[in-house]
Amino acid sequence: MPRINIDRIEQDILAIARFGLQEGRQGVYRQGFGKADMEVRKWLGRTFDELGMAHRMDGAGNVIGRYGPGDKPAIAIGSHLDSVPAAGMFDGVLGVAAGLEVVRTLQENGIEPDHPIEVIGTSEEEGRFGGMLGAQAMTGHITREWLETASDERGNALKDAMAEAGLDVFEALHAYRRPEEFRAFLELHIEQGPILDSERQTIGVVEGISGVFKWNCRLIGKAGHAGTAPMDMRSDAFMGIADFAHEIQRIIDEEGSDKSRITIGHVGLKPGFPHTVPGEADFTIVGRDLDEEVMRGLANACRRVLSSIARKHRLKFEYEEMSWLKPAFCDKDLVAMIEAKTKALGYSYKVMPSGAGHDAQFFCDHTRAAMIFVPSVGGISHAPDEWTHWSDIEQGAQLLFETVLELACETVAKPKADA
Amino acid sequence: MPRINIDRIEQDILAIARFGLQEGRQGVYRQGFGKADMEVRKWLGRTFDELGMAHRMDGAGNVIGRYGPGDKPAIAIGSHLDSVPAAGMFDGVLGVAAGLEVVRTLQENGIEPDHPIEVIGTSEEEGRFGGMLGAQAMTGHITREWLETASDERGNALKDAMAEAGLDVFEALHAYRRPEEFRAFLELHIEQGPILDSERQTIGVVEGISGVFKWNCRLIGKAGHAGTAPMDMRSDAFMGIADFAHEIQRIIDEEGSDKSRITIGHVGLKPGFPHTVPGEADFTIVGRDLDEEVMRGLANACRRVLSSIARKHRLKFEYEEMSWLKPAFCDKDLVAMIEAKTKALGYSYKVMPSGAGHDAQFFCDHTRAAMIFVPSVGGISHAPDEWTHWSDIEQGAQLLFETVLELACETVAKPKADA
Repeated sequence: MPRINIDRIEQDILAIARFGLQEGRQGVYRQGFGKADMEVRKWLGRTFDELGMAHRMDGAGNVIGRYGPGDKPAIAIGSHLDSVPAAGMFDGVLGVAAGLEVVRTLQENGIEPDHPIEVIGTSEEEGRFGGMLGAQAMTGHITREWLETASDERGNALKDAMAEAGLDVFEALHAYRRPEEFRAFLELHIEQGPILDSERQTIGVVEGISGVFKWNCRLIGKAGHAGTAPMDMRSDAFMGIADFAHEIQRIIDEEGSDKSRITIGHVGLKPGFPHTVPGEADFTIVGRDLDEEVMRGLANACRRVLSSIARKHRLKFEYEEMSWLKPAFCDKDLVAMIEAKTKALGYSYKVMPSGAGHDAQFFCDHTRAAMIFVPSVGGISHAPDEWTHWSDIEQGAQLLFETVLELACETVAKPKADA
Repeated sequence: MPRINIDRIEQDILAIARFGLQEGRQGVYRQGFGKADMEVRKWLGRTFDELGMAHRMDGAGNVIGRYGPGDKPAIAIGSHLDSVPAAGMFDGVLGVAAGLEVVRTLQENGIEPDHPIEVIGTSEEEGRFGGMLGAQAMTGHITREWLETASDERGNALKDAMAEAGLDVFEALHAYRRPEEFRAFLELHIEQGPILDSERQTIGVVEGISGVFKWNCRLIGKAGHAGTAPMDMRSDAFMGIADFAHEIQRIIDEEGSDKSRITIGHVGLKPGFPHTVPGEADFTIVGRDLDEEVMRGLANACRRVLSSIARKHRLKFEYEEMSWLKPAFCDKDLVAMIEAKTKALGYSYKVMPSGAGHDAQFFCDHTRAAMIFVPSVGGISHAPDEWTHWSDIEQGAQLLFETVLELACETVAKPKADA
């Protein structure tokens, strides 16, 4: 069996990290459609040229390189090139660099795939404009209306940001790819969580991507002087959140699973003065699970518990469901194939959900999709300290290579899914 | 017994409310040493003129009118003329308007007091510069260094604000009054809390002003992705605050009294994103009680509980004590005299602490000080909806008048305190 070359992956990851590198150990920042993001896309095009791959940038900014026979359904290897602010150098980038290495390994071993291989650097996965534009565009999950109106936190319109990057926003609609164009979509990604690292497993065989709901909540009480308002006569909005937070573990124990997450990430108190009892508290609830029924159970329990706590504290409870994304399931046969290969390679592994969203989730209903995780040291991601050991990346990339090989070369072995 | 005239008090309160009246039902705003604040001080001077009272503005901006024989210790009736933003029309103002009415009532009844009466409109009580400048200056609670360096939230220096108002900041040191200059300090004030209103009592006989400590606290955990970080592997700084908030009632039950208050008024989470487990939480704790030993018990319990919660959640707990103000006690004999008069007048009343700070607290160790509260409807204060019924003000002012009469006129009755 041919072996991938980890040195070349490292070189590519380091090369990509130079785009958007910030001074003073502030990590990298390639904001979607920003200057560094568009430059790294040009770099990817040049790299495709060096590998003799046909390539193009689609209307959504995805950069797609293609290797192998022309018109058959492709095995796509994709992940994103944009980043959050103060990012590390592995998030997204790993999946693209590994895709390039898969093609190089095929080439240097003289393997001609029976199916074309696409390496895709997707665009705007980090949600500057509230979605995962590149993957959504390819799989038909965007509307003209959304393209027309989307804007980032600072109020910059998507259409203006794309125009500045030399792109016409409505061309994103033409980035759509028919399901028949794909044989599979594969994504190698860092876990961005602590599970593999703490359990000392190298490979995460991803069974699906958790669904997620986001609520904007508000508890309204009565502001009062922190000295003059007796404890039992207050309508303290913060005490309402605190009581709810205290119930989260019970809600998960009763309604959830070991894959459930409920997080209060934002809290704002009004007036927010030390000497004033908070009259109003805005906060967010983000809930996740791999099972949509469990998600419903968690959401219902949050609503019931908050309503009851609001009554107890003489508060008014309001919430708005900002989003409800269903779980997405990886292709069962592909998951089984990847698990079998992991075992055969003797790698330690764990079948697990992805708690975070990824480009792959939009391909789950579109073609056969699968993801491979490698460990994030300390679970750290979206931070300059993000790190994954090269030896782990080597195993993840080898596993990706062998999976692609089986899917792309009918002479190697027929994937179980086609049997 | 002469009766005060509530109509004249109402006229004065309405007259004062015109200074700093905001458009659009936004209440009044007389920022300490601001234009409206200095204008209302001139109005008070003109009103003293009309009453034939000698008057002056001292170096701290206090406006002091004096009625009666020249050199004996005075009975001072004082409260503040400055206001918070979007204030109501009673806070502070009531004490000054009632003082004017006491003098008018003496005059129209031809009563010559044996001791002079001072009506004082104090300056900068609302803490624009972090203190109660007027009362602190009169009682020797300011230093040259503080005058030199004090600034408001926007970074405006006290010395500049005073210079703009035509005052030399260091002249505030000359506002000091020797204890021998006073026979008593009396302050009629709205309760600014809900107790009298909810218990349907008209008069609050104030036994003292609660001490207060303020802590700036920080819990430091580890930020993480709200999807990838399992619940049991998080170091969620917000869950630390929530657990602490949940313990507040128990801390008060075990260590406190019915006069204890513990408030979390400000919470800031970092990074504060809905999809990120909070890695750091800054918050304030403000604790109060009328007994300094109880305050110490509350503070120790807060520290113990927070340390224990921090260990449980794998957090680091830091705090800084920003201030520790001891309780101030009203003069026991004056309190007894006022309670007796309240009973004799047939007014409903409650002996109670003041949870909020007032000018009177600085006079507690300086002379004999006492305060009378009247109800705040709904407990609302520091808001345009602040309201106190005129009938309640009438009773409070009559009680003040009779108290002053007894203290000022040796022929009326000798105060118990002198017995």
